[in-house]
Amino acid sequence: MAPPQILSSTNLKSLFESVDTFLFDCDGIVSGFFSPLSQFEILVMGDTLIHGVSQTLDLLRSKGKNVVFVTNNSMKSRRQYAEKFGSLGLTSVTQNEIFSSSFAAAMYLKVNNFPKDKKVYVIGGEGIIEELKIAGFSGFGGPEDDEKKAQWKSNSLFEHDKSVGAVVVGLDPNINYYKLQYGTLCVRENPGCLFIATNRDAVGHMTDLQEWPGAGCMVSAMCGSTDREPIVVGKPSTFMMDFLLQKFGTETSRMCMVGDRLDTDILFGQNAGCKTLLVLSGVTSEENLLEESNNIKPDYYTSMVSDIMKLMESP
Amino acid sequence: MAPPQILSSTNLKSLFESVDTFLFDCDGIVSGFFSPLSQFEILVMGDTLIHGVSQTLDLLRSKGKNVVFVTNNSMKSRRQYAEKFGSLGLTSVTQNEIFSSSFAAAMYLKVNNFPKDKKVYVIGGEGIIEELKIAGFSGFGGPEDDEKKAQWKSNSLFEHDKSVGAVVVGLDPNINYYKLQYGTLCVRENPGCLFIATNRDAVGHMTDLQEWPGAGCMVSAMCGSTDREPIVVGKPSTFMMDFLLQKFGTETSRMCMVGDRLDTDILFGQNAGCKTLLVLSGVTSEENLLEESNNIKPDYYTSMVSDIMKLMESP
Repeated sequence: MAPPQILSSTNLKSLFESVDTFLFDCDGIVSGFFSPLSQFEILVMGDTLIHGVSQTLDLLRSKGKNVVFVTNNSMKSRRQYAEKFGSLGLTSVTQNEIFSSSFAAAMYLKVNNFPKDKKVYVIGGEGIIEELKIAGFSGFGGPEDDEKKAQWKSNSLFEHDKSVGAVVVGLDPNINYYKLQYGTLCVRENPGCLFIATNRDAVGHMTDLQEWPGAGCMVSAMCGSTDREPIVVGKPSTFMMDFLLQKFGTETSRMCMVGDRLDTDILFGQNAGCKTLLVLSGVTSEENLLEESNNIKPDYYTSMVSDIMKLMESP
Repeated sequence: MAPPQILSSTNLKSLFESVDTFLFDCDGIVSGFFSPLSQFEILVMGDTLIHGVSQTLDLLRSKGKNVVFVTNNSMKSRRQYAEKFGSLGLTSVTQNEIFSSSFAAAMYLKVNNFPKDKKVYVIGGEGIIEELKIAGFSGFGGPEDDEKKAQWKSNSLFEHDKSVGAVVVGLDPNINYYKLQYGTLCVRENPGCLFIATNRDAVGHMTDLQEWPGAGCMVSAMCGSTDREPIVVGKPSTFMMDFLLQKFGTETSRMCMVGDRLDTDILFGQNAGCKTLLVLSGVTSEENLLEESNNIKPDYYTSMVSDIMKLMESP
C-alpha cells in the first residue's frame, strides 16, 4: 500500500480531477456545544466552526463537486440536521447534502418498493418517523411509546398491528420492554416483516464526558428476542454508497471520504472503494497515522478541512 | 441411536438403579394459573397439580433419590419458587431442591471466589438480588432502577460504582436505558468486570396467550453495547450440571433429566450426558416423538410424571 501523501496543491489538483463527490463523515467525539446529538468534529473545534470550513464547502460546490455529510446518528431527520448546521453558521448546507441513517432507513424501503399500505414500527427517535413520512411511508412507535408499559397478565393479549411490514431500530434513549415486545411480535409474527437497523454502533459520545450505549444496543436486543439478524443501512453497510452512486450517477472510485478516524471513516471509505482524506483536527494525530503499528493508510492527509481551500488558492 | 422406550415397571427399575438424581425441567408453556412467572407444565394440567405428582416426588425422595427442579426463570429466588410450589400443594419442595438461574448466577460467583468486597450490578428481577444476598454478595440495581432516567446533558457525568466486579443480566420487564448504561459502564470501564447472563432464551410465555422477549433480549442488548459475550449460567450452559455434580458427588450419567420438550429439555439432558425421560403431558405428543423427522430421542417416555409412582407400585 502506498504511504499516505500530505495534501498539497499538486496532489489536490489530481484528487479534484479524479473525484466528483466529497463525503464528510460527521460521526465522532461530540463537542460539548453540540451535545447530545451532533457530531461534527471535523468541522468544528471546541464550540466554534473551524475557520474557512464554510468557504471550503462553497468552493467545492462552485467546482461542481457533490458534498455529502454522512452520519450514523438516527435521532434527527435531515431537516433537523440542516437546522443544526445552520446554527453553526453553515447555512449553506441543505437537507439534500445530508445522509443520516434515519434517511437511509426510509430510502432502503423506497428503493426496495416497500408497499405503501404496509406500516413501519419504529424503535428510535423522531428523526426516523419524520424521514419515513417524507418518503411516503406510515411509521409509528418511536417517542410516542416512550412511557408505555407492557403488562404481564393472565389472559391479556398484547395487540400488535398485523399490517406492519418493517421494524426500524435505531438509537433509542427511551428503550423499554413495551417497544421491544411490539417490535418482536411484528418481526416474529407478521409474515415477511423486515428488520432494519439504522446502524450497530456499540457506543457513542451522547455527552462529552463519556460513552453511552449506541444503536447497537437496541438492535442487538431485538436480535436476542427475534433470533434474526437485521438489514443494516448505516455505516459500515454500503447501502449509503450504493444509494449515492445511483443518485449522482457516479462510481465509488470517484468519491472521496473525508474523516478523522482511521478505523471507521478511512477504513469504511477504503472498503467501499473510495479515495480517502484524513484530517488531523479530530482524534487522529500525525504520529498515530505514521506509527508502524497502523496499517490503515488514507490516500491523503491534511490538518483540517479548510486546507483544501488554502491549497486551491495557493499558487 | 436406540429408539425411545416406553417407561415400564421393568425399565423403570433399571433407570432407578442407574441414576441417583432426577432433574425436572420446569420451563415451558406457562399455565394461566401461574402467569406470569412459573412454568411447571410437567407437574400441572390447566390450573391443577397433576394427580399423584406430590406422592411421586415423595416416593423418589424416600428411595434416596435427589430431586431438583430446574428453571431458567431468574425473576424469583428459590425461596419464592418454594412458596409457589407450596401454593400448588407441593409443600414438600424445599429451596434446596430448586435450581433457578438466579441461584445459578450467585453460585457461579461463589464457585469462582468472587471477592466479597466487590459489588454486583443487576439488570433483572428481585430474585437475583435475593440470591446474591443469601450467597453473601452485595448486589444492587434490579427493580430499584426501574424508574431511573439517564440524562444526556453537556458536562454531566453518569457516575457508576468502580467497585462493581460483575454485572448479572436476566429477564427484566422494566429494562431501560439507565440500566443499560450502568451495566455497560461497569463492563467496559471496570477492569476485569464479569458479564454474566442468567440465560439467553429469546422469548418466553410470560402470559398464557403469547410469547414475549426473554432474558436473551436484555443480554443481547448488553452484548451490543459492550462488544462482549457473557458467561451463561442457566441452560443450555452446563454450569448447573457441574454444580450439582459437585454438590451430590455424582456424575451426569447418574442423572435423569425429565421434561416435556425435545429440543430443549431432552437435548440439553443428552448433551450433558444425562439419562432422559420425556413426559407427554406437555408440548410433545407421542406422534411428534415418533415421527421420522424427529432425531431427538429420549431414553424413555411416558404419559406423565406420576406414572413413575404407578409403575413402581404395579406388580
